[in-house]
Amino acid sequence: MEGDPTLQLRIFDLNCWAIRYLSKRRQERVGLIGDVLRREGFDLVLLQEVWSEQDYSDLKSKLGGCYPFSHYFRSGVIGSGLCVFSRFPILDTLLYQYSLNGYPYMLQHGDWFCGKAVGLVHGGHGRFAPRFPQLHAEYCREKDAYLPHRLLQAWELAQFIRHTSKAADVVLLGGDLNMHPEDVGIRLLRGWTGLRDAYAEAARFEGCENGCTLIPKNCFTLKTELLPFPLGIRIDYILYKAISSFTVKCEELKTTTGTAPGMDIPFSDHEAVMATLHIQRQGQAGGATPGTAEPMLADVVTEARTEVDVGLRAARRQRYSTGRMAVLALLLLLVQAVAALGALAGLAAEQPFPKLSFSLLAFFAIGVLLLATGLHLFHTMEVKMLQGTEEQLRMALRALQELP
Amino acid sequence: MEGDPTLQLRIFDLNCWAIRYLSKRRQERVGLIGDVLRREGFDLVLLQEVWSEQDYSDLKSKLGGCYPFSHYFRSGVIGSGLCVFSRFPILDTLLYQYSLNGYPYMLQHGDWFCGKAVGLVHGGHGRFAPRFPQLHAEYCREKDAYLPHRLLQAWELAQFIRHTSKAADVVLLGGDLNMHPEDVGIRLLRGWTGLRDAYAEAARFEGCENGCTLIPKNCFTLKTELLPFPLGIRIDYILYKAISSFTVKCEELKTTTGTAPGMDIPFSDHEAVMATLHIQRQGQAGGATPGTAEPMLADVVTEARTEVDVGLRAARRQRYSTGRMAVLALLLLLVQAVAALGALAGLAAEQPFPKLSFSLLAFFAIGVLLLATGLHLFHTMEVKMLQGTEEQLRMALRALQELP
Repeated sequence: MEGDPTLQLRIFDLNCWAIRYLSKRRQERVGLIGDVLRREGFDLVLLQEVWSEQDYSDLKSKLGGCYPFSHYFRSGVIGSGLCVFSRFPILDTLLYQYSLNGYPYMLQHGDWFCGKAVGLVHGGHGRFAPRFPQLHAEYCREKDAYLPHRLLQAWELAQFIRHTSKAADVVLLGGDLNMHPEDVGIRLLRGWTGLRDAYAEAARFEGCENGCTLIPKNCFTLKTELLPFPLGIRIDYILYKAISSFTVKCEELKTTTGTAPGMDIPFSDHEAVMATLHIQRQGQAGGATPGTAEPMLADVVTEARTEVDVGLRAARRQRYSTGRMAVLALLLLLVQAVAALGALAGLAAEQPFPKLSFSLLAFFAIGVLLLATGLHLFHTMEVKMLQGTEEQLRMALRALQELP
Repeated sequence: MEGDPTLQLRIFDLNCWAIRYLSKRRQERVGLIGDVLRREGFDLVLLQEVWSEQDYSDLKSKLGGCYPFSHYFRSGVIGSGLCVFSRFPILDTLLYQYSLNGYPYMLQHGDWFCGKAVGLVHGGHGRFAPRFPQLHAEYCREKDAYLPHRLLQAWELAQFIRHTSKAADVVLLGGDLNMHPEDVGIRLLRGWTGLRDAYAEAARFEGCENGCTLIPKNCFTLKTELLPFPLGIRIDYILYKAISSFTVKCEELKTTTGTAPGMDIPFSDHEAVMATLHIQRQGQAGGATPGTAEPMLADVVTEARTEVDVGLRAARRQRYSTGRMAVLALLLLLVQAVAALGALAGLAAEQPFPKLSFSLLAFFAIGVLLLATGLHLFHTMEVKMLQGTEEQLRMALRALQELP
């Protein structure tokens, strides 16, 4: 933005749902996404769930002409799934992995293997610092076992943004936050960082009712999950904030409405979110500091703390029960060892146990011991991280209460 | 620093080597550290390897009078071991865990369980942002299998500092970096962040020759490890940098010399590092931008990339061999299943295998399958992270080469 005091920035954000072998019509959809991106010529494209590096490479070779700069973030076993395409130079990148992300043994949910993270891109032409996070998915809203993990992620994301945003003129955040607009996590994120919601601020809006991004009309969504929400839910966001002497306004926000423009299939099971931002260099900063913008922020932090506390207690219980299981397995092994030694030393007149079931039992005990120890270590880590978050939230609360 | 344009800041940094049940004379030493800290009244105390929260609590209750603000960072199975005591308010904290930190199966080294990390503290009275990292230990200098992991950590640390330092007036980094001053990792860290080495810049120095912090004279160091270095090695550092309109000078640097002042035992197996910094508000920033301060930075980045590449190839080999092992175990299980089904269906005239060895073999195969799969997943993650770092280093190199 050297010289020119205003800039219009067009952003495209989409959770692509491109899981190899699992996502329906993946290659067709990725091709379609590439076509539309090339045709529309956005300034900045933030994609999530591009799990296959091959898909990224395909997009990259297709989009090289209009988006000369791109980056793919690697993390976890499968990857972070995050990539960015930009018309402006990407000067620097940073990936922050959340310290908790579900449970490795919940194979059917698979979040743990994804290494969910927030990617930071530091871009040229003015100093935009878009971040595009993906948070732990919500699998069951009524009994949401992952809420504490998602809250921890929301808090870590908020802290990450606060600590890294001073280097930018404009902070952008686009991504699938897996939280409804009124959820405590998103209120915490917005309140603590001062980020503004493009949907709420947009001068013009066009798209699904209430800005929903997961809608029953989309042929790939699970209809049963959306039963309580006939209009759908809004979990993909574009948030923004101006630092230093800039102001940002959202001129227009659009979502796709169940199908890709002019096609009969959608881009993904999520709808794409497209924002047109108007960025202007002028007087004082528009970014509000926490505590002033949200007089209710202390309540939000308290609410988040309560939820993290619930998770902490559950984690402590699991740490205890897995530890007890490991100790029991160890005791069983010891008893067996003593019995076997006794039999070897000829204390018993004859072999007292059938060899087969004896060794099966020993193997069973070893298996349980290993598994329980692993889980115990995992839940110990979980307790530590939730404790740390709880303490940081307490510190934040104290800071808020001390504000004049 | 509101009002007063100058400030003298006294910093104490120590790797405390306080591992429960393992570290010699731990409680006595922690008590000693507390006594000296209380007597000396530093402004900022950065401690590493305080693995027991009980030790932290003891220190906290002892030091509450002169260091009213403190924080303990939790992470990993055991913890991060990082804590900070401060005369100035701690406004905010952030913990960044490195994405790789050794191997879970190297139990004797244990780094993986520690969740090594860098802690960031945002302090009041001026805006200091001290960070105190601890990097993966070096266990064998000649055949250093952890070098790529340590380099990845050094790079992540450098990136973390670059992206978070804009929010501060003065950036301080104190900690056990587990690298010698001429190592590529520390050159990368200093070059990429513009941090200056208090030892090299100090107007006055008092302490061990060459500023060593692991010396043969210390009764707790392993003498065999230090055989090639008769004077010892320097792996604990205080680094600093001024952002915005401040200048920082190191007036004095001190280390302990094998024993705690006036005592016959040392604080730890490491020597403590104590710096007196003179901070002044004035004209233009003192912090150098990378590329100008270090004309050789491109060479350093290239060297680091080569080393990360070596690690990447090793990780790929291990991913392949663990994957092959898992496949072999699976095949063995399948063969056994076919044989067992055959026997059950009465295809064989009589039971062809002794039941005991047959089931022992099956359990063995299951064990190998689980273990190999776990390791395969781990090395897959390792490959991803090293690839990501390699790519970031390549991007950094390109940016450096494009500089005028």
